[in-house]
Amino acid sequence: MKSDIEIAQNAEKWPISKIAETAGFEPEEVIPYGSDKAKIELDAEKHQGGLGKLILVTSINPTPAGEGKSTVAVGLADALNLTGRKTMLALREPSLGPVMGMKGGAAGGGYSQVIPMEDINLHLTGDFHALTIAQNTLVALVDNSIYQGNPLNLDPRQLLLKRTIDVNDRELRNVVMGLGGRTSGVPRESGFDITAASELMAILTLSTDLVDLQKRINRIVVGYTYDKQPVTVSELNVAGAITTLLKDAIKPNLVQTIGHTPTLIHGGPFANIAQGTNSIQATKTALMMADYTVTEAGFGADLGGEKFLDVKTPLLGKNPDAIVIVATIRALKMHGGLAKTELNQEDLPALKAGLGNLGQHINSMKRYGIPVVVTINKFASDTEKEVQLVEDYVSDLGVKVTPVDVWGKGGHGATELADEVAKATKQPTDFHKLYQADDDAVVKLNKIVQTIYGGKQVELSDKAQKQLDSYAKLGWDKLPIIVAKTQYSLSDDPKQVAAPADFIIHVREFVPKLGAGFLVALTGKILTMPGLPKVPAATKIKIDGNGKISGLF
Amino acid sequence: MKSDIEIAQNAEKWPISKIAETAGFEPEEVIPYGSDKAKIELDAEKHQGGLGKLILVTSINPTPAGEGKSTVAVGLADALNLTGRKTMLALREPSLGPVMGMKGGAAGGGYSQVIPMEDINLHLTGDFHALTIAQNTLVALVDNSIYQGNPLNLDPRQLLLKRTIDVNDRELRNVVMGLGGRTSGVPRESGFDITAASELMAILTLSTDLVDLQKRINRIVVGYTYDKQPVTVSELNVAGAITTLLKDAIKPNLVQTIGHTPTLIHGGPFANIAQGTNSIQATKTALMMADYTVTEAGFGADLGGEKFLDVKTPLLGKNPDAIVIVATIRALKMHGGLAKTELNQEDLPALKAGLGNLGQHINSMKRYGIPVVVTINKFASDTEKEVQLVEDYVSDLGVKVTPVDVWGKGGHGATELADEVAKATKQPTDFHKLYQADDDAVVKLNKIVQTIYGGKQVELSDKAQKQLDSYAKLGWDKLPIIVAKTQYSLSDDPKQVAAPADFIIHVREFVPKLGAGFLVALTGKILTMPGLPKVPAATKIKIDGNGKISGLF
Repeated sequence: MKSDIEIAQNAEKWPISKIAETAGFEPEEVIPYGSDKAKIELDAEKHQGGLGKLILVTSINPTPAGEGKSTVAVGLADALNLTGRKTMLALREPSLGPVMGMKGGAAGGGYSQVIPMEDINLHLTGDFHALTIAQNTLVALVDNSIYQGNPLNLDPRQLLLKRTIDVNDRELRNVVMGLGGRTSGVPRESGFDITAASELMAILTLSTDLVDLQKRINRIVVGYTYDKQPVTVSELNVAGAITTLLKDAIKPNLVQTIGHTPTLIHGGPFANIAQGTNSIQATKTALMMADYTVTEAGFGADLGGEKFLDVKTPLLGKNPDAIVIVATIRALKMHGGLAKTELNQEDLPALKAGLGNLGQHINSMKRYGIPVVVTINKFASDTEKEVQLVEDYVSDLGVKVTPVDVWGKGGHGATELADEVAKATKQPTDFHKLYQADDDAVVKLNKIVQTIYGGKQVELSDKAQKQLDSYAKLGWDKLPIIVAKTQYSLSDDPKQVAAPADFIIHVREFVPKLGAGFLVALTGKILTMPGLPKVPAATKIKIDGNGKISGLF
Repeated sequence: MKSDIEIAQNAEKWPISKIAETAGFEPEEVIPYGSDKAKIELDAEKHQGGLGKLILVTSINPTPAGEGKSTVAVGLADALNLTGRKTMLALREPSLGPVMGMKGGAAGGGYSQVIPMEDINLHLTGDFHALTIAQNTLVALVDNSIYQGNPLNLDPRQLLLKRTIDVNDRELRNVVMGLGGRTSGVPRESGFDITAASELMAILTLSTDLVDLQKRINRIVVGYTYDKQPVTVSELNVAGAITTLLKDAIKPNLVQTIGHTPTLIHGGPFANIAQGTNSIQATKTALMMADYTVTEAGFGADLGGEKFLDVKTPLLGKNPDAIVIVATIRALKMHGGLAKTELNQEDLPALKAGLGNLGQHINSMKRYGIPVVVTINKFASDTEKEVQLVEDYVSDLGVKVTPVDVWGKGGHGATELADEVAKATKQPTDFHKLYQADDDAVVKLNKIVQTIYGGKQVELSDKAQKQLDSYAKLGWDKLPIIVAKTQYSLSDDPKQVAAPADFIIHVREFVPKLGAGFLVALTGKILTMPGLPKVPAATKIKIDGNGKISGLF
């Protein structure tokens, strides 16, 4: 069997100019990066046809078995095009950290991939790198201000911004910097986050244009004074420089699927530590160009799905017309307690035990008033009885299951799902957000915990409670909440699979992100800087003298 | 008077495809990055005409007055083209750290600039970013190996590689990392270098192709075992992944001057802390395509010039056919003791006192057996008597001075210099390196100190001496030397301007760079991570809603 990278390398790639033409972009809107990638600088006045239908693909809580959410999103988009519906994909950019660590690539799989998969998984057009250096330049300017006499009276113990790096590097989680005497900075404790968790990443993906981007950068709180007053970037007078560093990164990137569906890949916040959706710019561009836009939100519906609907949708000004929830029978059996080595045999009790995870996500997504479609991403090991069990369970929740075979067949393996989803988008929606803008933070959190996670309630640490008290005085207590939580469980404990009940979500700390416009609630033991595994994926990646890459999964 | 960025933005830019055609590249060799930048993937078999003439532009020791070495290199290349000689430029890429700090842009000035100057000074095609993440991924993999059980027996106190960042960030010079307990790394002391100082930057610019690049990466010494044995990247099995991250960065970047001279900008090691020349790939490509290639080497001839001739030339397999030394009367007067505010009035005694700096560089370059041409980059404040004084002084050394006015007139201000340089390249050369390959490190250093710097001798710290003793056992003691030294003086003390005599160069420490193939000798107080000034250039950079940038100098 061919590997993903072999399939991608053997796929017929159209010139990006042809893909852009297919999508309807004017030639002057297309900035080529090689023959197979481009940035898009849309002239909105040329495209006045209104917005198409929006389809959000999300999934159950991930397991080591793999669910294939991106693969299904790609296959579904190809299938919509194959069945005569003008469709674009709008996805996130993969982060290099996980590519070199555990996860491998993130551009779909098999015959449902986005290409060139190597470049997409490596540097693409450099957006992550621009964000990394923009964030690091900003923090260096903050430290330099303290070093040069500290005119803003910043307290080095109360700085909020961290430097970032797009590497899974646990060694940099906690560092003491500024050592070496008077000429080498001011000693202080800090650490590095992975780039996907940076406030600039959140801001870039939420900005509507350069002016909005610069406004948001000016609003970033870099830290507090000795007398506990917040200090913003605007006081440093460097938002122009930081915006300048992001002038290209703000433009969406155009690539294609193996089935030649025009695909915008843009922005890459993780859903377990950030908002987990691609950019407003990319989604809106796709909506303007195509009749159907397929997009995805990171990890399970509890993380990316909730954030898409409660945080991104209001800024986008358009709610999804249908939500697709992806599951695999293998993953559901893992939720039911099987080990990864035990997934090849039929096991109806395990499957039954795991179905509650799917059920929770179906119910939580249904409450938003948007039609929900469930799909099973098929594997050869799935048995008829297993498929039937899932169909019966889901049917009892009033939702239909439409299996797909997208890894092996591309869009041809999802035409039935395409019909089903297209039909769903014709139904009226009655979108209502989970919480009200003026709900208190604890009210917002409890609505998320109870309705989306199926838990009992939220509990704040002393530190988190003190933070909320101080935010009330600053007027930050009504901001939307981004929950940072393990992706493996509906709870904040990665070991609680399937559908745990009566659990508490523990908020240990808040991180105010005023530029992005939300509060991040760090729960459980979630970290904003991952580490590398014992055998990193980097040890498998090879390249020959002609630049041909192998071992990138 | 218009600023550099205003002149650059108003210049007529040819499509990069037209520039590539002018240079003689085949369309399939050109990978566009937008309409005004491209990467070149040369098919060497298509270009068999032999190598053209190579012209190395270098200068006196820089002063705050500015010398305009890059500006003269650009103007000279334009002038060679204007006078009917097929010419290409091969320059280094600017580093973002200094652009946001003190220096501002680095793409020439006035009407002798490389464009698009904004992109060249910002991300260009992402080479620096690829190097940054490649180096950081490599070091994270080293730390992860120690964390995961340390199978290579690496001593955390004896690691050589540092993480890098393309920001002037003194706060990261000295850090303690790996704090936070068992799951967050292994505590150790380290620090960050600026990307331009990284071993991967040195390697990238010296590599002839992907295979050579990977070989060199495998040879990098990451540190020592507890029993003091060196450990190389090959033992980590990650050279494939690191090479993969550099697969595009190894390709030279094509841009143009305001005068439409095809320009390859590639690689950016600083000359005060690294080898200070652009890439072998770019220089060789230009030599294959053009009759004349103009290139530059960083800072004064003592740093970039010496390294170009002793380290790069042997790998390039071709020595320069002429060396141009750039000086300004204002800078020479600063070497003669004037303050920056005193440069507008004629001051022959100060000029005379500063001329020794130019004299030392002329003599040191002449000894390589290559014709030397001196040029004065003219300013309105220069008087006839001052120019005459320089001409008389230089003439006594057997060299001719040809003034240029390239800031205001572009190539039209350097046609006489172009004729002079072209004539010089017709003279026979008798190139001989400064030192022999099998000279001991101290012999090599003394030859550099005495012949190039005009000093008395080198002195090693105890640490440096011990390092050399251990290198002798490892067989590293005959490697070429890269001296890291202040650019402001021929000595290792930035305050000793003009031509100090009888000085000692103090080597405090060596850094072995086995992948690059040399030993770096850190002298005086030179640092491999700069800091930001009190008023960083970043505070002046602005961008409007249409993406138009101002304040980038």
